[in-house]
Amino acid sequence: MAEYNSAPLVSAAEQFAKLPGIGMKTAQRLAYYMLNQPVEDVEKFTSEILKARKSVHCCKICQNFTDTDECSICGDFRRDKKTICVVEAPKDVSALERAGGFNGVYHVLHGLLSPMENIGPNDIRIAELMKRLSGDVNEVIMATNPTVEGETTASYISRMIKPLGIKVTRLAYGLPAGSSLEYADDVTLQRAIENRNEL
Amino acid sequence: MAEYNSAPLVSAAEQFAKLPGIGMKTAQRLAYYMLNQPVEDVEKFTSEILKARKSVHCCKICQNFTDTDECSICGDFRRDKKTICVVEAPKDVSALERAGGFNGVYHVLHGLLSPMENIGPNDIRIAELMKRLSGDVNEVIMATNPTVEGETTASYISRMIKPLGIKVTRLAYGLPAGSSLEYADDVTLQRAIENRNEL
Repeated sequence: MAEYNSAPLVSAAEQFAKLPGIGMKTAQRLAYYMLNQPVEDVEKFTSEILKARKSVHCCKICQNFTDTDECSICGDFRRDKKTICVVEAPKDVSALERAGGFNGVYHVLHGLLSPMENIGPNDIRIAELMKRLSGDVNEVIMATNPTVEGETTASYISRMIKPLGIKVTRLAYGLPAGSSLEYADDVTLQRAIENRNEL
Repeated sequence: MAEYNSAPLVSAAEQFAKLPGIGMKTAQRLAYYMLNQPVEDVEKFTSEILKARKSVHCCKICQNFTDTDECSICGDFRRDKKTICVVEAPKDVSALERAGGFNGVYHVLHGLLSPMENIGPNDIRIAELMKRLSGDVNEVIMATNPTVEGETTASYISRMIKPLGIKVTRLAYGLPAGSSLEYADDVTLQRAIENRNEL
Protein backbone atom coordinates (compact mmCIF):
# COMPACT_ATOMS: atom_id res chain seq x y z
CA MET A 1 0.00 0.00 0.00
CA ALA A 2 1.68 3.15 -1.17
CA GLU A 3 1.59 6.82 -0.16
CA TYR A 4 -1.82 7.49 -1.75
CA ASN A 5 -3.32 5.35 1.01
CA SER A 6 -4.03 6.76 4.41
CA ALA A 7 -1.21 6.02 6.87
CA PRO A 8 -3.33 4.31 9.59
CA LEU A 9 -4.79 2.02 6.91
CA VAL A 10 -1.29 1.07 5.73
CA SER A 11 -0.20 0.41 9.34
CA ALA A 12 -3.22 -1.83 9.96
CA ALA A 13 -2.48 -3.80 6.80
CA GLU A 14 1.18 -4.16 7.83
CA GLN A 15 0.08 -5.59 11.16
CA PHE A 16 -2.16 -8.17 9.46
CA ALA A 17 0.70 -9.03 7.08
CA LYS A 18 2.81 -10.09 10.08
CA LEU A 19 0.44 -12.98 10.79
CA PRO A 20 1.63 -16.36 9.51
CA GLY A 21 0.21 -17.36 6.13
CA ILE A 22 -1.18 -13.88 5.42
CA GLY A 23 0.43 -12.03 2.52
CA MET A 24 0.24 -8.32 1.77
CA LYS A 25 -2.74 -8.71 -0.55
CA THR A 26 -4.86 -10.55 2.05
CA ALA A 27 -3.64 -8.15 4.73
CA GLN A 28 -4.93 -5.18 2.72
CA ARG A 29 -8.24 -6.93 2.22
CA LEU A 30 -8.52 -7.53 5.98
CA ALA A 31 -7.63 -3.91 6.76
CA TYR A 32 -10.34 -2.67 4.36
CA TYR A 33 -12.76 -5.16 5.91
CA MET A 34 -12.05 -3.78 9.38
CA LEU A 35 -12.80 -0.22 8.23
CA ASN A 36 -16.24 -1.35 7.15
CA GLN A 37 -17.12 -2.94 10.50
CA PRO A 38 -18.88 -1.16 13.38
CA VAL A 39 -16.41 0.37 15.86
CA GLU A 40 -17.74 -1.88 18.66
CA ASP A 41 -16.92 -4.99 16.62
CA VAL A 42 -13.38 -3.81 15.96
CA GLU A 43 -12.99 -2.97 19.65
CA LYS A 44 -14.19 -6.45 20.59
CA PHE A 45 -11.79 -8.00 18.05
CA THR A 46 -8.76 -6.18 19.41
CA SER A 47 -9.67 -6.46 23.09
CA GLU A 48 -10.35 -10.22 22.96
CA ILE A 49 -7.00 -10.87 21.30
CA LEU A 50 -5.13 -8.68 23.75
CA LYS A 51 -6.99 -10.29 26.67
CA ALA A 52 -6.04 -13.76 25.44
CA ARG A 53 -2.39 -12.79 25.16
CA LYS A 54 -2.35 -11.20 28.62
CA SER A 55 -4.40 -13.73 30.57
CA VAL A 56 -3.24 -16.98 29.00
CA HIS A 57 -0.05 -18.58 30.26
CA CYS A 58 1.30 -22.10 30.67
CA CYS A 59 -0.27 -24.54 33.12
CA LYS A 60 2.22 -25.06 35.97
CA ILE A 61 1.85 -28.84 35.60
CA CYS A 62 1.47 -29.73 31.92
CA GLN A 63 2.63 -26.46 30.28
CA ASN A 64 -0.50 -26.29 28.11
CA PHE A 65 -2.10 -22.85 27.66
CA THR A 66 -4.52 -21.88 30.41
CA ASP A 67 -5.87 -18.73 32.04
CA THR A 68 -6.01 -20.37 35.45
CA ASP A 69 -3.24 -21.71 37.67
CA GLU A 70 -3.82 -25.31 36.61
CA CYS A 71 -5.40 -26.16 33.25
CA SER A 72 -8.85 -27.77 33.08
CA ILE A 73 -7.37 -31.17 32.18
CA CYS A 74 -4.81 -31.25 35.01
CA GLY A 75 -7.52 -30.03 37.39
CA ASP A 76 -10.04 -32.70 36.34
CA PHE A 77 -10.21 -35.45 39.01
CA ARG A 78 -11.63 -37.93 36.47
CA ARG A 79 -8.46 -37.86 34.34
CA ASP A 80 -5.81 -40.52 34.88
CA LYS A 81 -2.79 -38.60 36.19
CA LYS A 82 -0.56 -41.68 35.88
CA THR A 83 -0.58 -41.63 32.08
CA ILE A 84 1.18 -38.66 30.48
CA CYS A 85 0.93 -37.97 26.76
CA VAL A 86 3.86 -35.84 25.53
CA VAL A 87 3.12 -33.50 22.60
CA GLU A 88 4.94 -30.75 20.76
CA ALA A 89 2.39 -27.93 21.03
CA PRO A 90 -0.96 -26.90 22.55
CA LYS A 91 -2.67 -27.47 19.18
CA ASP A 92 -1.77 -31.16 19.48
CA VAL A 93 -3.66 -31.34 22.78
CA SER A 94 -6.67 -29.86 20.94
CA ALA A 95 -6.37 -32.46 18.19
CA LEU A 96 -6.14 -35.40 20.61
CA GLU A 97 -8.98 -34.13 22.80
CA ARG A 98 -11.15 -33.57 19.74
CA ALA A 99 -10.46 -37.14 18.62
CA GLY A 100 -11.33 -38.45 22.07
CA GLY A 101 -10.20 -41.83 23.38
CA PHE A 102 -7.50 -40.59 25.75
CA ASN A 103 -8.25 -40.13 29.41
CA GLY A 104 -4.80 -39.36 30.77
CA VAL A 105 -3.05 -36.00 31.07
CA TYR A 106 -0.66 -34.15 28.77
CA HIS A 107 2.76 -32.60 28.73
CA VAL A 108 3.40 -29.86 26.18
CA LEU A 109 7.05 -29.49 25.14
CA HIS A 110 6.55 -26.20 23.25
CA GLY A 111 8.91 -27.30 20.51
CA LEU A 112 10.95 -30.22 19.25
CA LEU A 113 14.69 -30.93 19.36
CA SER A 114 16.25 -29.66 16.15
CA PRO A 115 20.02 -29.47 15.74
CA MET A 116 19.43 -27.72 12.39
CA GLU A 117 17.57 -24.88 14.09
CA ASN A 118 19.79 -24.99 17.15
CA ILE A 119 17.00 -26.11 19.48
CA GLY A 120 18.46 -28.26 22.28
CA PRO A 121 16.97 -30.08 25.30
CA ASN A 122 17.08 -26.89 27.40
CA ASP A 123 15.00 -24.96 24.88
CA ILE A 124 11.92 -27.15 25.28
CA ARG A 125 10.05 -28.23 28.43
CA ILE A 126 11.87 -31.52 29.08
CA ALA A 127 13.05 -30.61 32.60
CA GLU A 128 9.42 -29.93 33.60
CA LEU A 129 8.44 -33.38 32.29
CA MET A 130 11.24 -35.14 34.19
CA LYS A 131 10.16 -33.40 37.41
CA ARG A 132 6.63 -34.77 36.98
CA LEU A 133 8.01 -38.31 36.60
CA SER A 134 9.31 -38.32 40.19
CA GLY A 135 5.65 -38.70 41.17
CA ASP A 136 3.44 -41.74 40.57
CA VAL A 137 3.49 -42.30 36.79
CA ASN A 138 2.78 -45.58 34.95
CA GLU A 139 3.24 -44.67 31.31
CA VAL A 140 4.54 -41.88 29.11
CA ILE A 141 3.12 -41.80 25.57
CA MET A 142 5.38 -40.01 23.08
CA ALA A 143 2.90 -38.30 20.75
CA THR A 144 5.23 -36.04 18.77
CA ASN A 145 4.70 -35.82 15.00
CA PRO A 146 6.10 -38.61 12.79
CA THR A 147 8.79 -36.29 11.37
CA VAL A 148 12.58 -36.30 11.78
CA GLU A 149 12.40 -33.78 14.65
CA GLY A 150 9.44 -35.58 16.24
CA GLU A 151 11.25 -38.93 16.15
CA THR A 152 14.50 -37.46 17.47
CA THR A 153 12.69 -35.82 20.36
CA ALA A 154 10.68 -38.96 21.16
CA SER A 155 13.76 -41.20 21.25
CA TYR A 156 15.80 -38.64 23.23
CA ILE A 157 13.13 -38.36 25.90
CA SER A 158 12.43 -42.09 26.00
CA ARG A 159 16.13 -42.77 26.64
CA MET A 160 15.95 -40.39 29.61
CA ILE A 161 12.80 -42.00 31.01
CA LYS A 162 13.60 -45.70 30.64
CA PRO A 163 16.16 -45.83 33.49
CA LEU A 164 13.34 -44.67 35.80
CA GLY A 165 11.46 -47.91 35.12
CA ILE A 166 8.48 -46.11 33.59
CA LYS A 167 6.84 -47.57 30.48
CA VAL A 168 7.38 -45.41 27.39
CA THR A 169 5.20 -45.88 24.30
CA ARG A 170 4.92 -44.22 20.88
CA LEU A 171 1.82 -43.44 18.78
CA ALA A 172 1.16 -46.14 16.16
CA TYR A 173 2.31 -45.67 12.60
CA GLY A 174 0.15 -46.93 9.75
CA LEU A 175 -2.36 -46.07 7.09
CA PRO A 176 -4.60 -43.10 7.87
CA ALA A 177 -8.31 -43.99 8.06
CA GLY A 178 -10.08 -43.59 4.74
CA SER A 179 -6.82 -43.48 2.80
CA SER A 180 -5.85 -45.59 -0.18
CA LEU A 181 -2.89 -47.99 -0.42
CA GLU A 182 -2.24 -46.66 -3.90
CA TYR A 183 -1.42 -43.17 -2.68
CA ALA A 184 0.31 -44.06 0.58
CA ASP A 185 4.03 -43.20 0.73
CA ASP A 186 6.64 -45.98 1.00
CA VAL A 187 7.59 -45.39 4.63
CA THR A 188 3.96 -45.44 5.74
CA LEU A 189 3.32 -48.67 3.80
CA GLN A 190 6.45 -50.34 5.22
CA ARG A 191 5.42 -49.41 8.76
CA ALA A 192 1.84 -50.56 8.13
CA ILE A 193 3.17 -54.00 7.15
CA GLU A 194 5.71 -54.21 10.01
CA ASN A 195 3.12 -53.24 12.60
CA ARG A 196 0.33 -55.44 11.20
CA ASN A 197 -2.18 -56.80 13.73
CA GLU A 198 -3.78 -60.20 13.99
CA LEU A 199 -7.48 -60.24 13.08
CA MET B 1 -12.18 -25.08 20.17
CA ALA B 2 -13.94 -26.92 22.94
CA GLU B 3 -14.15 -26.66 26.69
CA TYR B 4 -10.68 -28.12 27.34
CA ASN B 5 -9.25 -24.93 25.86
CA SER B 6 -8.86 -21.80 27.94
CA ALA B 7 -11.83 -19.43 27.41
CA PRO B 8 -9.81 -16.33 26.38
CA LEU B 9 -7.99 -18.45 23.77
CA VAL B 10 -11.32 -19.65 22.37
CA SER B 11 -12.64 -16.06 22.26
CA ALA B 12 -9.55 -14.85 20.41
CA ALA B 13 -9.91 -17.65 17.85
CA GLU B 14 -13.60 -16.81 17.40
CA GLN B 15 -12.68 -13.20 16.67
CA PHE B 16 -10.16 -14.26 14.01
CA ALA B 17 -12.76 -16.60 12.50
CA LYS B 18 -15.02 -13.62 11.85
CA LEU B 19 -12.52 -12.25 9.31
CA PRO B 20 -13.41 -12.95 5.67
CA GLY B 21 -11.68 -15.99 4.19
CA ILE B 22 -10.47 -17.22 7.60
CA GLY B 23 -11.96 -20.50 8.78
CA MET B 24 -11.95 -21.91 12.31
CA LYS B 25 -8.77 -23.92 11.72
CA THR B 26 -6.75 -20.91 10.54
CA ALA B 27 -8.33 -18.79 13.29
CA GLN B 28 -7.07 -21.23 15.93
CA ARG B 29 -3.62 -21.18 14.39
CA LEU B 30 -3.60 -17.37 14.49
CA ALA B 31 -4.78 -17.33 18.12
CA TYR B 32 -1.98 -19.72 19.11
CA TYR B 33 0.47 -17.60 17.13
CA MET B 34 -0.59 -14.51 19.06
CA LEU B 35 0.00 -16.24 22.40
CA ASN B 36 3.59 -16.87 21.36
CA GLN B 37 4.32 -13.24 20.46
CA PRO B 38 5.73 -10.62 22.87
CA VAL B 39 2.98 -8.65 24.63
CA GLU B 40 4.24 -5.40 23.01
CA ASP B 41 3.78 -6.87 19.52
CA VAL B 42 0.23 -7.96 20.30
CA GLU B 43 -0.49 -4.53 21.76
CA LYS B 44 0.85 -2.89 18.59
CA PHE B 45 -1.24 -5.24 16.42
CA THR B 46 -4.49 -4.44 18.23
CA SER B 47 -3.83 -0.72 18.68
CA GLU B 48 -2.91 -0.11 15.01
CA ILE B 49 -6.07 -1.84 13.82
CA LEU B 50 -8.27 0.04 16.27
CA LYS B 51 -6.53 3.31 15.35
CA ALA B 52 -7.15 2.69 11.64
CA ARG B 53 -10.84 2.02 12.28
CA LYS B 54 -11.23 5.11 14.45
CA SER B 55 -9.19 7.62 12.46
CA VAL B 56 -10.00 6.58 8.91
CA HIS B 57 -13.19 7.92 7.32
CA CYS B 58 -14.33 8.88 3.84
CA CYS B 59 -12.78 11.84 1.99
CA LYS B 60 -15.46 14.56 1.84
CA ILE B 61 -14.83 14.93 -1.91
CA CYS B 62 -14.10 11.52 -3.45
CA GLN B 63 -15.35 9.21 -0.63
CA ASN B 64 -12.07 7.25 -0.61
CA PHE B 65 -10.66 6.27 2.80
CA THR B 66 -8.53 8.95 4.45
CA ASP B 67 -7.50 10.05 7.93
CA THR B 68 -7.52 13.70 6.95
CA ASP B 69 -10.36 15.96 5.84
CA GLU B 70 -9.48 15.62 2.16
CA CYS B 71 -7.59 12.59 0.83
CA SER B 72 -4.06 12.94 -0.53
CA ILE B 73 -5.25 12.60 -4.13
CA CYS B 74 -8.01 15.22 -3.89
CA GLY B 75 -5.57 17.50 -2.05
CA ASP B 76 -2.83 17.14 -4.68
CA PHE B 77 -2.71 20.30 -6.87
CA ARG B 78 -0.92 18.36 -9.65
CA ARG B 79 -3.94 16.06 -10.23
CA ASP B 80 -6.45 16.94 -12.92
CA LYS B 81 -9.69 17.67 -11.02
CA LYS B 82 -11.69 17.80 -14.27
CA THR B 83 -11.37 14.07 -14.92
CA ILE B 84 -13.17 11.81 -12.43
CA CYS B 85 -12.68 8.06 -12.42
CA VAL B 86 -15.63 6.26 -10.77
CA VAL B 87 -14.80 3.00 -8.95
CA GLU B 88 -16.62 0.53 -6.74
CA ALA B 89 -14.30 0.44 -3.73
CA PRO B 90 -11.14 1.96 -2.19
CA LYS B 91 -9.16 -1.13 -3.25
CA ASP B 92 -9.83 -0.20 -6.88
CA VAL B 93 -8.20 3.19 -6.30
CA SER B 94 -5.18 1.31 -4.97
CA ALA B 95 -5.09 -0.91 -8.06
CA LEU B 96 -5.32 2.00 -10.51
CA GLU B 97 -2.74 4.08 -8.64
CA ARG B 98 -0.39 1.11 -8.52
CA ALA B 99 -0.78 0.67 -12.27
CA GLY B 100 -0.11 4.37 -12.84
CA GLY B 101 -1.12 6.20 -16.02
CA PHE B 102 -4.06 8.11 -14.55
CA ASN B 103 -3.62 11.65 -13.36
CA GLY B 104 -7.22 12.61 -12.62
CA VAL B 105 -9.18 12.16 -9.40
CA TYR B 106 -11.48 9.39 -8.19
CA HIS B 107 -14.97 8.85 -6.92
CA VAL B 108 -15.58 5.79 -4.75
CA LEU B 109 -19.15 4.46 -4.85
CA HIS B 110 -18.71 2.02 -1.92
CA GLY B 111 -20.78 -0.60 -3.70
CA LEU B 112 -22.53 -1.41 -6.96
CA LEU B 113 -26.20 -1.42 -7.89
CA SER B 114 -27.62 -4.89 -7.37
CA PRO B 115 -31.36 -5.57 -7.55
CA MET B 116 -30.62 -9.14 -6.39
CA GLU B 117 -29.06 -7.91 -3.16
CA ASN B 118 -31.51 -5.03 -2.87
CA ILE B 119 -28.84 -2.35 -3.33
CA GLY B 120 -30.35 0.70 -5.02
CA PRO B 121 -29.00 4.11 -6.12
CA ASN B 122 -29.47 5.55 -2.64
CA ASP B 123 -27.34 2.84 -1.05
CA ILE B 124 -24.17 3.86 -2.89
CA ARG B 125 -22.46 7.25 -3.22
CA ILE B 126 -24.13 8.41 -6.47
CA ALA B 127 -25.65 11.62 -5.02
CA GLU B 128 -22.14 12.69 -3.89
CA LEU B 129 -20.87 12.13 -7.43
CA MET B 130 -23.70 14.13 -9.03
CA LYS B 131 -22.96 17.01 -6.63
CA ARG B 132 -19.34 17.09 -7.81
CA LEU B 133 -20.47 17.31 -11.44
CA SER B 134 -22.06 20.72 -10.88
CA GLY B 135 -18.46 22.01 -10.80
CA ASP B 136 -16.04 22.14 -13.74
CA VAL B 137 -15.75 18.53 -14.98
CA ASN B 138 -14.71 17.41 -18.49
CA GLU B 139 -14.92 13.64 -18.30
CA VAL B 140 -16.23 10.87 -16.08
CA ILE B 141 -14.55 7.48 -16.56
CA MET B 142 -16.70 4.55 -15.43
CA ALA B 143 -14.16 2.10 -13.98
CA THR B 144 -16.45 -0.41 -12.32
CA ASN B 145 -15.65 -4.11 -12.77
CA PRO B 146 -16.72 -5.82 -16.03
CA THR B 147 -19.41 -7.84 -14.21
CA VAL B 148 -23.20 -7.68 -14.42
CA GLU B 149 -23.41 -5.33 -11.40
CA GLY B 150 -20.49 -3.25 -12.66
CA GLU B 151 -22.10 -2.82 -16.09
CA THR B 152 -25.50 -2.02 -14.64
CA THR B 153 -24.03 0.63 -12.36
CA ALA B 154 -21.90 2.14 -15.15
CA SER B 155 -24.83 2.45 -17.55
CA TYR B 156 -27.18 3.78 -14.83
CA ILE B 157 -24.74 6.51 -13.85
CA SER B 158 -23.83 7.37 -17.45
CA ARG B 159 -27.54 7.88 -18.26
CA MET B 160 -27.71 10.35 -15.36
CA ILE B 161 -24.58 12.23 -16.45
CA LYS B 162 -25.12 12.51 -20.22
CA PRO B 163 -27.89 15.17 -19.97
CA LEU B 164 -25.32 17.38 -18.19
CA GLY B 165 -23.21 17.47 -21.37
CA ILE B 166 -20.24 15.80 -19.65
CA LYS B 167 -18.28 13.15 -21.58
CA VAL B 168 -18.71 9.67 -20.05
CA THR B 169 -16.26 6.88 -20.93
CA ARG B 170 -15.84 3.24 -19.94
CA LEU B 171 -12.65 1.23 -19.31
CA ALA B 172 -11.63 -0.76 -22.41
CA TYR B 173 -12.56 -4.42 -22.69
CA GLY B 174 -10.13 -6.79 -24.33
CA LEU B 175 -7.50 -9.43 -23.80
CA PRO B 176 -5.50 -9.09 -20.59
CA ALA B 177 -1.78 -8.49 -21.16
CA GLY B 178 0.22 -11.72 -21.28
CA SER B 179 -2.89 -13.84 -21.78
CA SER B 180 -3.51 -16.41 -24.48
CA LEU B 181 -6.31 -16.38 -27.10
CA GLU B 182 -6.77 -20.08 -26.50
CA TYR B 183 -7.88 -19.62 -22.90
CA ALA B 184 -9.82 -16.35 -23.26
CA ASP B 185 -13.56 -16.62 -22.66
CA ASP B 186 -16.02 -15.96 -25.49
CA VAL B 187 -17.26 -12.58 -24.30
CA THR B 188 -13.73 -11.27 -23.90
CA LEU B 189 -12.78 -12.50 -27.37
CA GLN B 190 -15.91 -11.00 -28.97
CA ARG B 191 -15.21 -7.65 -27.32
CA ALA B 192 -11.53 -7.81 -28.31
CA ILE B 193 -12.60 -8.19 -31.97
CA GLU B 194 -15.31 -5.50 -31.79
CA ASN B 195 -12.97 -3.00 -30.17
CA ARG B 196 -9.99 -3.75 -32.40
CA ASN B 197 -7.59 -0.86 -33.05
CA GLU B 198 -5.83 0.13 -36.23
CA LEU B 199 -2.08 -0.50 -36.21
